[in-house]
Amino acid sequence: MELPARFESLASTSGSAANYVPLTPTTFLSRTADVYGDLPSVCYGETQYTWRQTEQRVQSFARALLAMGLQPFDTVSVLAFNTPEMFEAHYAVPLAGGVLNTINTRLDADTISYIFERAETRFLLIDRELLPMAAMAIESCRARGQTLDIVIIDDPTAAAKPDVPADAYEFDVLLAKHHTARSDYLPAVVADELAPLAINFTSGTSGRPKGVVYHHRGAYLMAMGTVSGWAVPRHPSYLYLVPMFHCNGWCHAWTMTIMAAKVVCMRSVDPDAIFAAMQTHQVTHFGGAPIVLNMLANSPNKPARLNPDRVVQAMTAGAPPPASVLAKMADMGVEIMHVYGLTETYGHILQATPQPDWAEMDVQTEAELKARQGVRFPMTEQVGVIDEDGNEVVHDGETMGEIVIRGNVVMSGYLKDPAASEDSLKNGWFYSGDLAVVYPDGYIQVRDRAKDIIISGGENISSIEVEGALYKHPAVGEAAVVAMPDEKWGETPCAFVELKQDADASEQELIDHCAAQIARFKRPKKVVFGPLPKTATGKIQKFELRVKAKTLVS
Amino acid sequence: MELPARFESLASTSGSAANYVPLTPTTFLSRTADVYGDLPSVCYGETQYTWRQTEQRVQSFARALLAMGLQPFDTVSVLAFNTPEMFEAHYAVPLAGGVLNTINTRLDADTISYIFERAETRFLLIDRELLPMAAMAIESCRARGQTLDIVIIDDPTAAAKPDVPADAYEFDVLLAKHHTARSDYLPAVVADELAPLAINFTSGTSGRPKGVVYHHRGAYLMAMGTVSGWAVPRHPSYLYLVPMFHCNGWCHAWTMTIMAAKVVCMRSVDPDAIFAAMQTHQVTHFGGAPIVLNMLANSPNKPARLNPDRVVQAMTAGAPPPASVLAKMADMGVEIMHVYGLTETYGHILQATPQPDWAEMDVQTEAELKARQGVRFPMTEQVGVIDEDGNEVVHDGETMGEIVIRGNVVMSGYLKDPAASEDSLKNGWFYSGDLAVVYPDGYIQVRDRAKDIIISGGENISSIEVEGALYKHPAVGEAAVVAMPDEKWGETPCAFVELKQDADASEQELIDHCAAQIARFKRPKKVVFGPLPKTATGKIQKFELRVKAKTLVS
Repeated sequence: MELPARFESLASTSGSAANYVPLTPTTFLSRTADVYGDLPSVCYGETQYTWRQTEQRVQSFARALLAMGLQPFDTVSVLAFNTPEMFEAHYAVPLAGGVLNTINTRLDADTISYIFERAETRFLLIDRELLPMAAMAIESCRARGQTLDIVIIDDPTAAAKPDVPADAYEFDVLLAKHHTARSDYLPAVVADELAPLAINFTSGTSGRPKGVVYHHRGAYLMAMGTVSGWAVPRHPSYLYLVPMFHCNGWCHAWTMTIMAAKVVCMRSVDPDAIFAAMQTHQVTHFGGAPIVLNMLANSPNKPARLNPDRVVQAMTAGAPPPASVLAKMADMGVEIMHVYGLTETYGHILQATPQPDWAEMDVQTEAELKARQGVRFPMTEQVGVIDEDGNEVVHDGETMGEIVIRGNVVMSGYLKDPAASEDSLKNGWFYSGDLAVVYPDGYIQVRDRAKDIIISGGENISSIEVEGALYKHPAVGEAAVVAMPDEKWGETPCAFVELKQDADASEQELIDHCAAQIARFKRPKKVVFGPLPKTATGKIQKFELRVKAKTLVS
Repeated sequence: MELPARFESLASTSGSAANYVPLTPTTFLSRTADVYGDLPSVCYGETQYTWRQTEQRVQSFARALLAMGLQPFDTVSVLAFNTPEMFEAHYAVPLAGGVLNTINTRLDADTISYIFERAETRFLLIDRELLPMAAMAIESCRARGQTLDIVIIDDPTAAAKPDVPADAYEFDVLLAKHHTARSDYLPAVVADELAPLAINFTSGTSGRPKGVVYHHRGAYLMAMGTVSGWAVPRHPSYLYLVPMFHCNGWCHAWTMTIMAAKVVCMRSVDPDAIFAAMQTHQVTHFGGAPIVLNMLANSPNKPARLNPDRVVQAMTAGAPPPASVLAKMADMGVEIMHVYGLTETYGHILQATPQPDWAEMDVQTEAELKARQGVRFPMTEQVGVIDEDGNEVVHDGETMGEIVIRGNVVMSGYLKDPAASEDSLKNGWFYSGDLAVVYPDGYIQVRDRAKDIIISGGENISSIEVEGALYKHPAVGEAAVVAMPDEKWGETPCAFVELKQDADASEQELIDHCAAQIARFKRPKKVVFGPLPKTATGKIQKFELRVKAKTLVS
């Protein structure tokens, strides 16, 4: 861009080392350790570090990685629970110049092997308990000739103590060996803010998982924007229930560092342990999937209030929290904010931020408003819900369009998959594949995945809506609805249903049940009974059902 | 930088329109108006806008500027009080593609004329009351052949109603004429985040003011970092006492928009009006110079508490707040955070952020800790206090060095003054010219301006320290100490003193008084009595005294 003449002389100093510093979330730790060094950082069981100690451990681990031969942008994969080492890896790996690849601990061996190959894993940080599930992947990795150094997190509280490979390093031993003096700390700087910071694989509901690449700028802005959007105060007590392998734990490892939080880590999610940790650490903030909220709300051992002194702020994503859970959590002194995001967007980018007048509404209305996916976070530059021609849909709460996102917290692309990258990043937008409506107040509500929409006689049928109708039948345990080819209508809904144990229902009974619940044209034309295929993370694999449905006729 | 092969295919999508959006603070208004459109935005007297209305006014003013012929990066100068129009200019000018140049309303006509010429002012937004002081500058501007369109803020509450030039536009008339439909709103986007956003002239204590250039990225990060560093909650009620012509009001116009604050504007700073506004708007946050805090703390009409419901957060900069003011403000329910910054750093970059254990200390100790300039804000990437060889000084609270800053909130440079730019931006740092010590806890305390240090026999003498000693003498009204040439010592301190009315003291008496207060070698060798030369903003012009001192001998 041409600047007027009076700005020309700035060229000699603008963008210089003094006034242009590439953004990176690693600076958050350096500042917080400098400013709040004596305050608690990561807590885990009896262990409680200060921010100065966390920085020390991070720097020592980074030095260890370098000593073991880490080269710039080498992949450091992590298979671990939410323990301090997992948190520390979020700083040590980028400080050492590596790329962090946290892996879902519920994946199958074959998928882990695929990820090691795809991400070209050079180091594996792994919890000892998870060694057996990774054994085959490690073996294949080495059989391929990949150099793979293994660092073991040997947690004394682990339930199982499988054998450790003879050539593996132990995390604590490495820290002691590479204990780093302050004067030798690696600087929290990067040469390029768009350089890769992390690779997070999608859950693979539609085939092999894809490696989503994050950069430093995105993670920095995600963290800063979350502080603003969630209005995080100084020194919150944050219970880390979201697995850090999901979008780097919604980027909260970085976010919470900015505010010098106490970060309470837990190995597993168990209601009684959660209640105990909440009491011990006077938790003020946490995030969790709806199932976690549900578990807490329905636990017989739940306390009257989670924190007697203040309202606890909880963030949830995945499925809309039902009114009953919102009400129960409110009774326990918890305010829930529903958010929406994808692995491709570093986690949450929409938030059902509460409006001051919602509190005056009846519980059901408030719950309905809060169960929407919401409006954009401050770091989400633009969000659209667009029709096939790329135009924003009418904001009437009825007209569906696809959610598209533009912003610095949109992934750089999929690793080694330019076709998929270019397919989802085009026309200046990231295409989420989620179909949604926009209400007159601007709040977005997701209705379905784009590929889960059934187009029947030119009408869109939301598979979620048909599934919702099926779930209302007392005999239905699990249900999934996909498109089935139809000569007349193009597509019609086909339902796959797993009945509850000892329950019974005929195909016709379920079809009639749906026809009574929803528009008649939306009822399934066929019902197939039997167990549903699922991913390692428990998501129903609709793509398999789609393949199957193509062989059927209505 | 070379990336490993596995990242190469990202090149086709990384940094694309979908995932790279240049940072600009104008997005804050677009989001807040979308999300919190019905909530109060800018309040001024009886006027109270909503965020939707503020966006509407901003968009209409931006359209008006374009209709009047604004070209990209044209300078829009503003001479105004803290009224809604001043706030709106912070969004309208960049949205229209212009560069905002807010000017200190206490400057003399000659300096204003200099600024119009230097900044190549194309538009002037001016409060009607300020027309007389700008008349000469406007005239010179046009005499030079500069095209200058004038927009008048015609505030009905203004004390004076001077004549308006026949060719001037009226702000409200422009808004009505260019009322813009939502579908015609200008997008909050910039092509280059390093492009100029604002020009802020320094106060000119050392000669002609210099035009400091800010870019969009810096202002965005400044605002986000301030939310984090000051832990600003959602919907604060912010009283805008800091003039928006000082570093764009410490960039709080942008900061407060992120959190959808109620922004309470006032035409002038008067304790009773401030107390009234604080009560009406239940103010939770404000910023102000120490003199404002002092005025509030010592007002006979001060309320028992500024806000009965909560502790009010106040930010102050300039001089360390004395213990007595901190104590009085604490009694009124105000927590003060002392910050430090310069026009060259977009405002505050250090903050005396409170540590949890400070509250347990005695009032005097706590005040001393809080009166330091502090530690870095989250958006301040690096701060050093370095000796002449560029090494960080010992953190002993005694060894002095110069404060140097590296970060995205350091100016691009001085307008049309590459020599000055290169002199202050070098070796990867911005040289602040302020001398400071660092305490063992990492908190920085400013001791003097570099050029105000007197080097006598190889020893540094802080002119502030000598002035402090002089101020303790009951007869001294105002004092300034500068270096005077000395054959033996190189330099010695020379004091310029204005005695209090009806007070009396001899030169020798003041010299002896100082010798009893501070190290003997630091005592002034000469005392010159008489009125002190000052800038339009009331700062003592030490450079004039330095010139005078050079003609003297000790």
